[in-house]
Amino acid sequence: MSNRDAECIRQRVADLEVGQAARSIFMAKSKQLLDFSSKPGRYLTLTLFDRTGEIKAIVWDGGEGVYNSFEDGDVVRIEGHVSEYKGTPQITIETIHKCSRGDFELSLFLPRTKKDVDELLHRLKSKSKAFTNTYLERLVLGFLEDPEFAAAYVQAPAAKSIHHAVIGGLIEHSSNVVSLCEAVPMLYPIIDTELLVAGAILHDIGKVVEYTYNGPFDLSDEGKLIGHVVIGERMVAQAIEGIADFPQSLALKLRHMILSHHGKLEWGSPKRPKTLEAIALHLADYFDACVAQFTEVVEESSNLEGKWSPYNRRLERQLYLE
Amino acid sequence: MSNRDAECIRQRVADLEVGQAARSIFMAKSKQLLDFSSKPGRYLTLTLFDRTGEIKAIVWDGGEGVYNSFEDGDVVRIEGHVSEYKGTPQITIETIHKCSRGDFELSLFLPRTKKDVDELLHRLKSKSKAFTNTYLERLVLGFLEDPEFAAAYVQAPAAKSIHHAVIGGLIEHSSNVVSLCEAVPMLYPIIDTELLVAGAILHDIGKVVEYTYNGPFDLSDEGKLIGHVVIGERMVAQAIEGIADFPQSLALKLRHMILSHHGKLEWGSPKRPKTLEAIALHLADYFDACVAQFTEVVEESSNLEGKWSPYNRRLERQLYLE
Amino acid sequence: MSNRDAECIRQRVADLEVGQAARSIFMAKSKQLLDFSSKPGRYLTLTLFDRTGEIKAIVWDGGEGVYNSFEDGDVVRIEGHVSEYKGTPQITIETIHKCSRGDFELSLFLPRTKKDVDELLHRLKSKSKAFTNTYLERLVLGFLEDPEFAAAYVQAPAAKSIHHAVIGGLIEHSSNVVSLCEAVPMLYPIIDTELLVAGAILHDIGKVVEYTYNGPFDLSDEGKLIGHVVIGERMVAQAIEGIADFPQSLALKLRHMILSHHGKLEWGSPKRPKTLEAIALHLADYFDACVAQFTEVVEESSNLEGKWSPYNRRLERQLYLE
Amino acid sequence: MSNRDAECIRQRVADLEVGQAARSIFMAKSKQLLDFSSKPGRYLTLTLFDRTGEIKAIVWDGGEGVYNSFEDGDVVRIEGHVSEYKGTPQITIETIHKCSRGDFELSLFLPRTKKDVDELLHRLKSKSKAFTNTYLERLVLGFLEDPEFAAAYVQAPAAKSIHHAVIGGLIEHSSNVVSLCEAVPMLYPIIDTELLVAGAILHDIGKVVEYTYNGPFDLSDEGKLIGHVVIGERMVAQAIEGIADFPQSLALKLRHMILSHHGKLEWGSPKRPKTLEAIALHLADYFDACVAQFTEVVEESSNLEGKWSPYNRRLERQLYLE
Amino acid sequence: MSNRDAECIRQRVADLEVGQAARSIFMAKSKQLLDFSSKPGRYLTLTLFDRTGEIKAIVWDGGEGVYNSFEDGDVVRIEGHVSEYKGTPQITIETIHKCSRGDFELSLFLPRTKKDVDELLHRLKSKSKAFTNTYLERLVLGFLEDPEFAAAYVQAPAAKSIHHAVIGGLIEHSSNVVSLCEAVPMLYPIIDTELLVAGAILHDIGKVVEYTYNGPFDLSDEGKLIGHVVIGERMVAQAIEGIADFPQSLALKLRHMILSHHGKLEWGSPKRPKTLEAIALHLADYFDACVAQFTEVVEESSNLEGKWSPYNRRLERQLYLE
Amino acid sequence: MSNRDAECIRQRVADLEVGQAARSIFMAKSKQLLDFSSKPGRYLTLTLFDRTGEIKAIVWDGGEGVYNSFEDGDVVRIEGHVSEYKGTPQITIETIHKCSRGDFELSLFLPRTKKDVDELLHRLKSKSKAFTNTYLERLVLGFLEDPEFAAAYVQAPAAKSIHHAVIGGLIEHSSNVVSLCEAVPMLYPIIDTELLVAGAILHDIGKVVEYTYNGPFDLSDEGKLIGHVVIGERMVAQAIEGIADFPQSLALKLRHMILSHHGKLEWGSPKRPKTLEAIALHLADYFDACVAQFTEVVEESSNLEGKWSPYNRRLERQLYLE
Repeated sequence: MSNRDAECIRQRVADLEVGQAARSIFMAKSKQLLDFSSKPGRYLTLTLFDRTGEIKAIVWDGGEGVYNSFEDGDVVRIEGHVSEYKGTPQITIETIHKCSRGDFELSLFLPRTKKDVDELLHRLKSKSKAFTNTYLERLVLGFLEDPEFAAAYVQAPAAKSIHHAVIGGLIEHSSNVVSLCEAVPMLYPIIDTELLVAGAILHDIGKVVEYTYNGPFDLSDEGKLIGHVVIGERMVAQAIEGIADFPQSLALKLRHMILSHHGKLEWGSPKRPKTLEAIALHLADYFDACVAQFTEVVEESSNLEGKWSPYNRRLERQLYLE
Repeated sequence: MSNRDAECIRQRVADLEVGQAARSIFMAKSKQLLDFSSKPGRYLTLTLFDRTGEIKAIVWDGGEGVYNSFEDGDVVRIEGHVSEYKGTPQITIETIHKCSRGDFELSLFLPRTKKDVDELLHRLKSKSKAFTNTYLERLVLGFLEDPEFAAAYVQAPAAKSIHHAVIGGLIEHSSNVVSLCEAVPMLYPIIDTELLVAGAILHDIGKVVEYTYNGPFDLSDEGKLIGHVVIGERMVAQAIEGIADFPQSLALKLRHMILSHHGKLEWGSPKRPKTLEAIALHLADYFDACVAQFTEVVEESSNLEGKWSPYNRRLERQLYLE
Repeated sequence: MSNRDAECIRQRVADLEVGQAARSIFMAKSKQLLDFSSKPGRYLTLTLFDRTGEIKAIVWDGGEGVYNSFEDGDVVRIEGHVSEYKGTPQITIETIHKCSRGDFELSLFLPRTKKDVDELLHRLKSKSKAFTNTYLERLVLGFLEDPEFAAAYVQAPAAKSIHHAVIGGLIEHSSNVVSLCEAVPMLYPIIDTELLVAGAILHDIGKVVEYTYNGPFDLSDEGKLIGHVVIGERMVAQAIEGIADFPQSLALKLRHMILSHHGKLEWGSPKRPKTLEAIALHLADYFDACVAQFTEVVEESSNLEGKWSPYNRRLERQLYLE
Repeated sequence: MSNRDAECIRQRVADLEVGQAARSIFMAKSKQLLDFSSKPGRYLTLTLFDRTGEIKAIVWDGGEGVYNSFEDGDVVRIEGHVSEYKGTPQITIETIHKCSRGDFELSLFLPRTKKDVDELLHRLKSKSKAFTNTYLERLVLGFLEDPEFAAAYVQAPAAKSIHHAVIGGLIEHSSNVVSLCEAVPMLYPIIDTELLVAGAILHDIGKVVEYTYNGPFDLSDEGKLIGHVVIGERMVAQAIEGIADFPQSLALKLRHMILSHHGKLEWGSPKRPKTLEAIALHLADYFDACVAQFTEVVEESSNLEGKWSPYNRRLERQLYLE
Repeated sequence: MSNRDAECIRQRVADLEVGQAARSIFMAKSKQLLDFSSKPGRYLTLTLFDRTGEIKAIVWDGGEGVYNSFEDGDVVRIEGHVSEYKGTPQITIETIHKCSRGDFELSLFLPRTKKDVDELLHRLKSKSKAFTNTYLERLVLGFLEDPEFAAAYVQAPAAKSIHHAVIGGLIEHSSNVVSLCEAVPMLYPIIDTELLVAGAILHDIGKVVEYTYNGPFDLSDEGKLIGHVVIGERMVAQAIEGIADFPQSLALKLRHMILSHHGKLEWGSPKRPKTLEAIALHLADYFDACVAQFTEVVEESSNLEGKWSPYNRRLERQLYLE
Repeated sequence: MSNRDAECIRQRVADLEVGQAARSIFMAKSKQLLDFSSKPGRYLTLTLFDRTGEIKAIVWDGGEGVYNSFEDGDVVRIEGHVSEYKGTPQITIETIHKCSRGDFELSLFLPRTKKDVDELLHRLKSKSKAFTNTYLERLVLGFLEDPEFAAAYVQAPAAKSIHHAVIGGLIEHSSNVVSLCEAVPMLYPIIDTELLVAGAILHDIGKVVEYTYNGPFDLSDEGKLIGHVVIGERMVAQAIEGIADFPQSLALKLRHMILSHHGKLEWGSPKRPKTLEAIALHLADYFDACVAQFTEVVEESSNLEGKWSPYNRRLERQLYLE
């Protein structure tokens, strides 16, 4: 079956209605085998999702048989119908088959930024090409014009679950930080704008290795054990080694900016900012991360009644929405 | 003696040279009577300063007599000559008289921002006049067009000693925060730009009461016991009461922004930010305060040798200057 | 139906027994519509309460119809009978109607202090009338003899859920703090007793605005965004403005006491205590709040077996009850 | 020479005037040998003090010889005269001899409470005798009527340098805590008053071992390595063992009160309060300690000009004195 | 029935299979009476356990009658059969009778160390006998050769639930700390090895009083109110008093080691380490406790799939198991 | 002049006596030009040191001329004589000349470990050669048998000023950590001993780059901006890339150990330990660092009177030395 055919008949989770037949492809996660309460044997429950939402599903017969036929993050083609359980729609599945991953665009299934990531990438390249410092220009473009890196840079999320936890979240967040950084030098002419913008573009590139995002977002082993701060600094250091005559002090300042961009030791930076550009980068990063978190809470509360959001455990407060 | 005459013969502290006669007006502070080591009686030491620097001075004869003739922050006219003590210039004073305060511009003696505060004020007024929300426009202009308030707003420092501790520091800092806030709504359209900018203009207005700055910068009693956060919120609340039909929710949001702009309880805000505009205002304020501190350390180190600033106790680090 | 009639037939929650008919008025909260598990449609669950306790209730038929006929905190008249579910009594409701709020005393439904609040108020007035400092006397009596304020002062709780979270909790807590403060000056004659007692009476008056308590206790918008510390200081400041020749320093000290009574920035005071009376007020307030919390845990455990209370999450410990 | 003679001719430090002959006894501390700047050999400097103050002293000739003839805390008889150095009086000593310690009352030299410690002791005994709980009565009187213990209890300071760092400070502080505790049960009838008062009397008795106070106040080795919290609990536990049939639970509660009276682990209590009486004792102790610190700062500032105390490093603030 | 007979027919929890008859003795805990959902009356649920694991059990008929016939920690003889509920085995009990505690070895039911505690005890005795310092030898052997103490020392757990929460955990942990301490003096010859090893053997002996372990592990009242740190120091201090001429300084150092072995005030030591041996003891104790916690997480995860352990709340992380 | 000649006439600082002629080579630091108090011009002060101690020195005539002829850390040949100032010996210099650095062994001037570093290196090599895991063997020997690395590894200090701040401190500290790690696997067989020991040998190798130690110890720019934790992890990662087929998981675990060996984020590790070997390495490192600090305080106090060390600001306590 071709990708195009698959598309033709794809149903969006958000559009499913109780009573309807369900025949489509979805990404699967959270499969579980549960005992029947009144007879021997087990049935299978799972969650199906695409980027419009998720829905519970159940395989009453033969669940044990198909349990091992797919993994979390696989795309499956199912047939069945939409029923209701405790007031919530769920799919009673009759047939379920794993599809080949290559056939489908990941973006059909995973939440993604509303921004146009290609335009963001283009914008960052333009900024880099305008640098008068050719070392910084070559360094940044070395990343952005490398097709493999660029593909990852526009796909990776910026977080697993908090802010910018969407496909394209990394470049969206990085672009925001760049924008904030560009406002700074007007106020503080002593700051090296190009160094700051270059740092803003590169500060989180370690996340292309830290996260796995060709399925439900997770951290890679290297992400958990080494972390994007150190990974990113290394990527930059290695790229610098490939650029002849890159000034040593500039290299040190840029590597320090990547390492220190979390601002505090207890936030995971092994060094605190010790240059003007490093502190400004940290503050811009912090600014975007905080405002993004608040924004997400406000948006999630937008269709609730009342002037106050539900209590948000991470922010340890309710937000006033009026 | 007219102000003009005084000006004519004013010597700048930075220009004084050993061996020279000293005949000029300076601001005085830190007066002290010390015992002679080899005879009865006491001599007077003091510090003379203007906005270009400060110099120690000494009155050998009659020090006890003039001790009570002036206070810290008074402007004095002195005659004497510049000598040297332990390698440092000092003035040996022969005559010293207090001048009337009214005769001189404070700005001759106190450090002041390099920015043109009138232009900053004009710019903030223009922004306010462009508000589509007429309640916010009336509120902000009610302050900025009040001659008494405006005079204080362009004079007050933003701090006693850390960042923007200069005449004009308040409006310089406020303008910086406004500039940062203006960059935000492009990234987060959900934010109410005019509310955010209004909050940025007004967030620190309590400092016109918190500081005394018609002499060496200090905190007023009300500054120490109530603080600019609460004072400023009150000023805004009272102004709002004078504007007919000011929407209650808008008033609450604006008052909350002033109160919560320090961001954390332990930083002196009695409430943490609970709206998008409040968190953005806090972050912009924090951003400018941090970068300003770093900038000041870098500038103070600019004429030292070496790649590293001296250890800065407030930042608990050295800065890399290369 | 008159209030009196209503009273005649009111049943107390604590007296309801399984099998009994239920015909009475209660306050309602936590209404919810749930799907039937075996047929279409939804039924209504809610909680009924008065000051003696609370009981679950259920409307099997027509629940969707009455769902919008009342809100949290409304008083409803119900008919039904007391059944049992999982060993716990619940009311199966046949008819339910909202009553007019004005017809009933709030105190029938909300937990209230065991103290006689009128006596407490009288006692505080007497103390104030005995002040030799007439400014303090006029200030405090200005509040306590204002009928509207006094009505709120004897009704408001001192907290939403922790200590003194009862109708009358504010005056009970304030009276306790006054009593502790009166013990202090014997030990420390240098303390200004009247100032301290005046501060104790007024320190939490912002809570009459901070809480809503004509239904289940909650925080008002102003309570959440401004807070009783700042609200209370403002109430005092405005009252002072109305008293001719009120000494400025006395005003500043009193306002500072209200603002700083939480003792630490991280506990929500924008200033830490900087006078003897301010530190003593904070300590007395802290004392009563802590002992009240311990007392409540002990009292709640009084009919449990064992020498130890259940683990209390707020205190992060079990209490020894032996 | 008899004690009486010594008294007759004792001069008080506070009364010494420049130009006067000095012939008296003082306590000595801080002795030091310093090189002459212009010739070989060394002279001796030391500090002489009594409870009215302290004064520097100097032995120009023979300083090396007498250096080892006395130790810190010894009482010395000196002859010399009062001169002035840099505006401060100092004694130029001609002869200096160590006196026998036994001959003098310590209270002549060390700062002591203004309270009548015998009256305080009498008052605490009366309270104990009024206990209806005879176990507590016997326990507390066992201490207070033991002459050796009582002598230490009325002499010991409550601290080395912060609050109640005076002879008699322990009983003064303990009496204050008792007074505060007596105010509590009116408010919280559930509290066991006699247990609380007994705990208040005994809570700091470990300090009779923790401090050395027959010279400049210091901590004993056991004070530094074990501490008064554990020492005091042990003293109480051992006394309880000597009282037949002392109820086990009462013993445990009392021992727990001693151990937990610092309230928090990080303040040196190995257990946090877990009974009503324990939390009330901690809070009363904390109350008195804090107010005492503030009071001392205010009193020390009483003869300074200005509305604000000097910055106090321990309190991390200035106090408003107006 | 004799203990031997009981042994003969004892079934191990880990060996029970669905469908099998169950006739054996187990320790019981967590008994609960629950309402039938469809008829009046209540049934009894409980947990049965031995050192190989635990299993839910249910008494459908007569549950209310037997509820009071046994307590948590009692050994019961049951007859019934192993059924399955939601995929998990449980015992449906027909008859249940409490057995006499004395008849059974506790070790049949409680988890215990895999180490041979008698060998560990023997080893610690040998080390103590080799001490050249006879005071330390007599002190330590006074404990280890006291049959009553030794019995408790080899039985007690080292914790309630975290690390070494097994019968024998105390001596296992103490032995580990001894081993680590023995490695130290090679590196730091200045350390007094015998003092350090003696401290290591004795540091946690208060736990024989702190824990109750003749049933499910719990803390005794004295454990909760006084704690093993202070209890242990007292045991050592009293033993020292019984040894003639025990050097006072050695006693102080050893008592200090026990008191300070938690290393920080906030970890429950009323004094921080102030000697070389005290800091080394703390570090060895901390080392063993941390590694033991990690080891337990790894072992619990050993039969799970995947490279990462489940999230551990105490360690606030997942462990990498690869 | 040959090195040998220089040696022949070298005087040790510790042996200099007042009145003696001084003719030797020393390392210089802290040079300063000071104004004469009574005439124009300036004189030069500096500190001379070797590994036995340091002494102040002064150049009265021509100080300005020689000020720029040497830098901190240079070796100078001086002639003069030992005088005394305020009871302390100092050298009055007549001639001073900079020597060539290459001519002298650094170890003459800088404090160095008492351990035989070559023996320590040999011992670490032997351990590595005994590894059964050939990947670890090749990795570790790749460092230890690289002459350039080994030269640095046996020279570098382990700290700038706290513990092991001596030439050879790095290998001394690393060897101690290895010794402690070797004691662990006996207690916890589940730990991979060879991985742990390899990690112990390599954990601090970034310090060969972090410190500069061919003069007074200091941090390099890379040390301050990147830090030994990240530098060391990179050195290990790069070495692993050069070993064919090095297992990926082993590489990840080793790199993680280096990165996480500070144990906590706030102590500068960007990741906390997430494997058994990583936590054990951290604990062993922490153990040695803490005990070393205590040991140094004890040793520095060894020739002081009294049972207590002076107050140590870093440890925030006095140590008991008895």
